[in-house]
Amino acid sequence: MLFNNGNIESVQLKSLLRITRAISHVRDLHSLITLLASETSKVLDVERSTVFLYSSKTDELWSYVAEGESEEIRFSASRGIAGSVFRNEKTLLLHDVSKDQRFNKTIDKTTGFITRNMLTAPIINSSGVCIGVFQVINKKEDNFTAKDAEFLEIVSSETAVTIENVRLLESRKRMFESLIKALTVSIEARDPLTAGHSFDVTFLSGKIAEYMNIDSDTRETIYYAALLHDYGKIAVPDSILKKPGTLSDDETAILRKHVQHTKIILSSIEFEGKLDQVPVFASQHHERVDGKGYPDGLKGDEISIGGKIIAVADVFEALTAKRHYREPYSMKKTLNLLISGIDTQFDRKAVLALRDYFIDIGKVKWEEVPID
Amino acid sequence: MLFNNGNIESVQLKSLLRITRAISHVRDLHSLITLLASETSKVLDVERSTVFLYSSKTDELWSYVAEGESEEIRFSASRGIAGSVFRNEKTLLLHDVSKDQRFNKTIDKTTGFITRNMLTAPIINSSGVCIGVFQVINKKEDNFTAKDAEFLEIVSSETAVTIENVRLLESRKRMFESLIKALTVSIEARDPLTAGHSFDVTFLSGKIAEYMNIDSDTRETIYYAALLHDYGKIAVPDSILKKPGTLSDDETAILRKHVQHTKIILSSIEFEGKLDQVPVFASQHHERVDGKGYPDGLKGDEISIGGKIIAVADVFEALTAKRHYREPYSMKKTLNLLISGIDTQFDRKAVLALRDYFIDIGKVKWEEVPID
Repeated sequence: MLFNNGNIESVQLKSLLRITRAISHVRDLHSLITLLASETSKVLDVERSTVFLYSSKTDELWSYVAEGESEEIRFSASRGIAGSVFRNEKTLLLHDVSKDQRFNKTIDKTTGFITRNMLTAPIINSSGVCIGVFQVINKKEDNFTAKDAEFLEIVSSETAVTIENVRLLESRKRMFESLIKALTVSIEARDPLTAGHSFDVTFLSGKIAEYMNIDSDTRETIYYAALLHDYGKIAVPDSILKKPGTLSDDETAILRKHVQHTKIILSSIEFEGKLDQVPVFASQHHERVDGKGYPDGLKGDEISIGGKIIAVADVFEALTAKRHYREPYSMKKTLNLLISGIDTQFDRKAVLALRDYFIDIGKVKWEEVPID
Repeated sequence: MLFNNGNIESVQLKSLLRITRAISHVRDLHSLITLLASETSKVLDVERSTVFLYSSKTDELWSYVAEGESEEIRFSASRGIAGSVFRNEKTLLLHDVSKDQRFNKTIDKTTGFITRNMLTAPIINSSGVCIGVFQVINKKEDNFTAKDAEFLEIVSSETAVTIENVRLLESRKRMFESLIKALTVSIEARDPLTAGHSFDVTFLSGKIAEYMNIDSDTRETIYYAALLHDYGKIAVPDSILKKPGTLSDDETAILRKHVQHTKIILSSIEFEGKLDQVPVFASQHHERVDGKGYPDGLKGDEISIGGKIIAVADVFEALTAKRHYREPYSMKKTLNLLISGIDTQFDRKAVLALRDYFIDIGKVKWEEVPID
């Protein structure tokens, strides 16, 4: 018996090692909690584990991960054993659930599963708030021990940490992204005729990147760079930005400086690791592959992939939109214009990707946009 | 012996529960790793634990937490047992370090500590990169076992997760904050004469909040709100924003609309929990406690604490700075003007806090800024 205890714990330690390693490796919350549940079922030798989370909107507990069930389980947070543990915030060990009045028989009726015994621990976050419960059902041999309860409490704690970290990271990301969108909207608010330009360029850049099979990190970088590519226009005076007629040479020079402003402003932002190319991508959207672009006259592969893609999307969007000084071009005319600029103004692959996209969604026909 | 093993493991499980609970409760990284180290020393019954982190800049390992040492320990990442574990990324158990050639004797010489035996585990992050090592020294009775190594690997894994999460959260926060600063700079770039205004208002708002003993969450909210309070000016045309003379009634109405723009733009940002009052604080800086302000004519406590504080800082900064239409006011004159506006334009406590701050730093004398 003592020997047995010793073994069980060694198994538990090994399992905790696998769990903590998983937490440090898996970034997707659902996969991670699923893994925690299956690891727990294995170590505690039970038929199934369920992780219920609390929804404050509906005052319900719902199964974020439910082993053996394809349907979501959802019930009032004041019902059943889970509801009781959720409210009391204390681990509960029940050797025979049929003897407990709190047991909610309707779930077994619905799922067809027969619950014999049950161990349930609260999931408590860093603010001391209970955010759900971790429940293991039907110990296969013998019954639950106090040590099993200890183990489940560790796993519940790991679950709380994991959920909270992922939520915090996601909310910080949403905050950052919404801020970028807000400033994209606000820069465009200065000129109603260009409103929506950056969002359209962002959408098209995403499509080009998708058709070019660009990896997801680079696509995320392109996404932010496209949203922000014209941000430097904030430093261009209204008199030039909104001028209905042709710009003088001096005015053109000032307008062109917006890419440098974009670079300077964006370079002061401490973009996270993989996103550090945002300022580069954003400020190269007026470069040309033949080296005749601005601001740096970069040639071919001196221009970043993001710069090449945003350049194509930017010109496409500008030509097909109404401007102060002219009516919009047709899609066919615009695409042919981009095609004629291949290897001089534009990157070949980026133009072909955009053309293929519009053919695929049926906006132009193959034969209307021929390549030499 | 078996009984003993059983106990040791139960102690280990309890310790892991304390550790995971701490991880879910403590937000400060250094306190957390210190706790992990002391918990580990207790459970493994060793004289001291040290957590070394790798610095890629200097290619060194340095003691982020070193029990029993007040000085930082720092050495080349290619030296010693720690360096070896760092490079090989494998846990190493040494019953007698004196027999190991890799052992770096200079550290014991420097610290005066005598190392007998040692257990060292690599700290590996989610990308599989080794970011440091966790080292425990001098088991008090017997020597290290394979189970001790297992335990240390769990703790190292927890350490990796914790460090990575905190770093990720911090880098995301820096990214967000630097973006806000970038847009604050860019909005002010439109008018060189007001450049720096928002940063000065932010600094002064912080001082007022500090002197009013405002809690840290609210101060953080005030910080962002003050940086962004004039962001709505992005929607005000140059012709009004930069007009050197007096504004007409129509122009004034347009200029005043900047607070509504601030509110609309900021409301589209998904501020994290406690920061959700940023749009409210930012858009109330032209309200007056007597209800004669704009945009909503709020009275007294209908105005948020942030709105009241930023209002005082904003007027102080505007009056003491040079403007298109007048020379700067003296500090004494400005403070007396604010004092005369107490309970009509301004909140009493906010004005007194600013006055006390300037008295404390010796910029004005008590008797120069009297209160009735």
